[in-house]
Amino acid sequence: MLFTGIYAPIATPFQGEQIDKEALRFNLERYSASPLAGLVVLGSNGEFAYLDSDEKMMLVEFVREHTDSSKRIIAGTGCETTRATIKLTQHAAKVGADAALVITPSFYKGSMTEAALEQFYLDVAEASPIPIMLYNMPRNTGLNMSSGLVCRLAQHENIVGVKDSSGNIVQIAEIIKGSPDDFAVFAGSGSFLYPTLALGGVGGTLAVANIFPETCVRLYEAVQAGDHDLAKSLQHKLLAPNAAVTSRWGIAGLKAALDLLGYRGGLPRRPMLPFDEANLPELRQILIDAGANLA
Amino acid sequence: MLFTGIYAPIATPFQGEQIDKEALRFNLERYSASPLAGLVVLGSNGEFAYLDSDEKMMLVEFVREHTDSSKRIIAGTGCETTRATIKLTQHAAKVGADAALVITPSFYKGSMTEAALEQFYLDVAEASPIPIMLYNMPRNTGLNMSSGLVCRLAQHENIVGVKDSSGNIVQIAEIIKGSPDDFAVFAGSGSFLYPTLALGGVGGTLAVANIFPETCVRLYEAVQAGDHDLAKSLQHKLLAPNAAVTSRWGIAGLKAALDLLGYRGGLPRRPMLPFDEANLPELRQILIDAGANLA
Amino acid sequence: MLFTGIYAPIATPFQGEQIDKEALRFNLERYSASPLAGLVVLGSNGEFAYLDSDEKMMLVEFVREHTDSSKRIIAGTGCETTRATIKLTQHAAKVGADAALVITPSFYKGSMTEAALEQFYLDVAEASPIPIMLYNMPRNTGLNMSSGLVCRLAQHENIVGVKDSSGNIVQIAEIIKGSPDDFAVFAGSGSFLYPTLALGGVGGTLAVANIFPETCVRLYEAVQAGDHDLAKSLQHKLLAPNAAVTSRWGIAGLKAALDLLGYRGGLPRRPMLPFDEANLPELRQILIDAGANLA
Amino acid sequence: MLFTGIYAPIATPFQGEQIDKEALRFNLERYSASPLAGLVVLGSNGEFAYLDSDEKMMLVEFVREHTDSSKRIIAGTGCETTRATIKLTQHAAKVGADAALVITPSFYKGSMTEAALEQFYLDVAEASPIPIMLYNMPRNTGLNMSSGLVCRLAQHENIVGVKDSSGNIVQIAEIIKGSPDDFAVFAGSGSFLYPTLALGGVGGTLAVANIFPETCVRLYEAVQAGDHDLAKSLQHKLLAPNAAVTSRWGIAGLKAALDLLGYRGGLPRRPMLPFDEANLPELRQILIDAGANLA
Repeated sequence: MLFTGIYAPIATPFQGEQIDKEALRFNLERYSASPLAGLVVLGSNGEFAYLDSDEKMMLVEFVREHTDSSKRIIAGTGCETTRATIKLTQHAAKVGADAALVITPSFYKGSMTEAALEQFYLDVAEASPIPIMLYNMPRNTGLNMSSGLVCRLAQHENIVGVKDSSGNIVQIAEIIKGSPDDFAVFAGSGSFLYPTLALGGVGGTLAVANIFPETCVRLYEAVQAGDHDLAKSLQHKLLAPNAAVTSRWGIAGLKAALDLLGYRGGLPRRPMLPFDEANLPELRQILIDAGANLA
Repeated sequence: MLFTGIYAPIATPFQGEQIDKEALRFNLERYSASPLAGLVVLGSNGEFAYLDSDEKMMLVEFVREHTDSSKRIIAGTGCETTRATIKLTQHAAKVGADAALVITPSFYKGSMTEAALEQFYLDVAEASPIPIMLYNMPRNTGLNMSSGLVCRLAQHENIVGVKDSSGNIVQIAEIIKGSPDDFAVFAGSGSFLYPTLALGGVGGTLAVANIFPETCVRLYEAVQAGDHDLAKSLQHKLLAPNAAVTSRWGIAGLKAALDLLGYRGGLPRRPMLPFDEANLPELRQILIDAGANLA
Repeated sequence: MLFTGIYAPIATPFQGEQIDKEALRFNLERYSASPLAGLVVLGSNGEFAYLDSDEKMMLVEFVREHTDSSKRIIAGTGCETTRATIKLTQHAAKVGADAALVITPSFYKGSMTEAALEQFYLDVAEASPIPIMLYNMPRNTGLNMSSGLVCRLAQHENIVGVKDSSGNIVQIAEIIKGSPDDFAVFAGSGSFLYPTLALGGVGGTLAVANIFPETCVRLYEAVQAGDHDLAKSLQHKLLAPNAAVTSRWGIAGLKAALDLLGYRGGLPRRPMLPFDEANLPELRQILIDAGANLA
Repeated sequence: MLFTGIYAPIATPFQGEQIDKEALRFNLERYSASPLAGLVVLGSNGEFAYLDSDEKMMLVEFVREHTDSSKRIIAGTGCETTRATIKLTQHAAKVGADAALVITPSFYKGSMTEAALEQFYLDVAEASPIPIMLYNMPRNTGLNMSSGLVCRLAQHENIVGVKDSSGNIVQIAEIIKGSPDDFAVFAGSGSFLYPTLALGGVGGTLAVANIFPETCVRLYEAVQAGDHDLAKSLQHKLLAPNAAVTSRWGIAGLKAALDLLGYRGGLPRRPMLPFDEANLPELRQILIDAGANLA
């Protein structure tokens, strides 16, 4: 198994509408000292869809350079076309990324049949110098990769895992059962981390790991150690903060939480609206209830 | 906790288009000797939507009468109107049902707001002599009950549990976390029984329990005993037969599987089409792979 | 063409939770004097899903009896099973209904394949002494009948038309183009009556025809007369009142509007909530803007 | 009314994976001689989501340069971020585009609230030297702009129209009724061109106008002349070829049809799969049935 453990899909801080490297470096130092297995740069939480291609190339390099070498770096390199995806993946490899996380192309949903997606991933896997992790994110893409397709792709030696953010736990179970033993199945959200691990998943790439890395890692280690009662109780604890920084308040909420916790969050890029200050007390309380020390 | 363990939502056998009581009695005898905690009569798998109100009233009585008294009987009494639901629930109580499983009314989806559903369940709970279990089945109803609504209803003393068939494991986790400790959360499908139990659920009402009652009960007991490895492996084993008798081939598939396993299945009522015989070898193989002895 | 023109799918008035025959008779007298082509009894707006089978049988007979003989009566006879649908259809025929409007069975959506629906409608058409009109209502059923299926069914001599409430104007155009010339395509909502007629549809069964029968008939006649400017302006006028009594406020809104206009509306059956009185001024204004004289 | 009539959202021909300017110039000459009101460059049919930003800038300039000056050029300038959209819009203005067609940003669907979309469009409209046309394309974006939002935005003096590809004819009617008289409502598909025009729409941006520009323009002119019978019959004629180059076979089908009709189509960019040759006879027949001379 090449990849296991908990990854944080980091936010991209902006100053005005420019990437704020200083803020990013600050966050990376802190994550370097955390128990996380690694970081995902250019994930959905990193506003990858809001970055141009120069910014994307710079970010992978910058994050690798300023993160402790003990941490793995996975780069989100999926683009709408095969050629752009391959180009960004090859760049990520060159600047030291350990793997590429490749989301399904999705704008032309009607044309993204299983056959088209299968060919896309095989083309990318063949051209990539680093291992590929599939990325299924129906809430954003409007497209689901079936367990059957994932299991077929899992046969390719350069396709080493999947991040499934669908929340469809049956699909996740089917992938675990139907894929090779060394194929890594990652939870795509902290809200179903424990059930995924209980069923045989081996890690998670979790928005909530940006703000509660220790709790997420403790849950992971509890399952490794067979302490399911602890895992269950940590899972319940993660539900509210996870929702706060994903489905409820999105990236604006994630960045507001980062600010409250002493990281550097700031504002999302437009057209995403800033976090509504009226919700700050509730967000603060959610973080405190989940164990944050915000005295 | 009033209700725990594994329940089979039994099929309704027909002879022509009449209910086949003899076949039903045969099945009930066999289930009486199984390790199941109880049976659900008039569930979705029992074609309750295809039965008229006289048939429904007769069936609850018949099933109670011909099932070993050690088994609990839960009756599916949800109808489109409050008054029909109350009437059927009161009848079920009178003939000995232990609880009523009440699906969300759903034809007028646009009018079934949270406020309308809340009032509906409170009205039914007030009028019912037996405990009420909520039933959330979005795949059939096109309507989802939020975890917030379920947790509010869980405060009512006569609403004792929920069967959630949504497969939304995050919603299930939220209900477990947000409801009173003695509120019973049941998996509504064998495909997510283990994750539900791992998160703190206490039972399941499972189509697949009709054909593999022992395996389902073993999974339940494994979690009780803290043997998560066994639970995980049993969950993986249940995936294919569960899909066969639900999402893939529906009630026709369930009845065909019952026939293969020596129960009395037969044909569903029209307009549901009979099981396509061309799929019989595949169904047979799925059952064998899951441990059935079909020599 | 057996059926053309504008039909009102009448509401079912209740007194407490009993059908209020007196109120119904009052409404029928008024509709008898209107320019409507006919009435639909047991339509979605008539809360057919909330009526038991005795009530349904009584209502068809009562409506036929108390409506001027110049008006056609179409009965909504679709039930979840083939046998219940046939039974109710034969009763409707016996008590004088001119046609049966048969909605798609929908509870077991996964099993309601095109093949199952096709067989269902052929079975009903063969057994029915009166012509069958198909009824496609995805918003309530969660199921759409494709234009291809409708066009195949349109070949049967006892299937004479379709009420399409999907609002999918392309599907409606495809049905008009692909069905025999004497197959009647009806708009299922006043919000797309004019486009349906412009494309070759021949009538409508419209909630809004309950409250503005004259306006609907004028629109219909304008298209017959080739006066498209008038039709267009009447269509625009119908948008707001149509939404008020359908998507916005549902049957509770329809009944409140009936009350305001001097018909007998009353309350819907539970679990549908009564019209929220706070919206009464807005509803009133919508009716006035659409031409009602509420001085 | 600044914009009226029929526009073709042109395909982008490739040679290998490079833009084939020669092929494009060939098509532009032919469209220049057609009765079309203008062209849309960088529309969905032009694979805009598959082009990088240099290609996009080049294409607007190239198309303006090689199209007869009597034709209007509308550029699809919508990007995921406000700043990229403004940048491309300003470039399009500089190189001579007459208007910008701006699709809803959609990747972060959960954050694209009405408030976010409203601010996005106002920001773009303020910064744009050329008029803005809103573009609602739920099938690709997974996001719908309500009629209420469109009508509010229509108040801005630099927002002059909307292309609605939703196919929701009621929503289209509501926009026509609720927007200022000089706000241009365009059908976004040839499958509902006539109903849109009949309700008061003033034009269309239609994939099928790439292959049957004359038929589309005849339909438009028929409505202008009040000849609704002709418009209806032309609409019916357009249904099959429209579906062939959109919902059925997508851009691959559009390009195959262009090739059959003597334009230069070629292959779409990867990951879109090429048109399946097995369907060529059927596509050919559809074009012939719609009036193409393919002898």
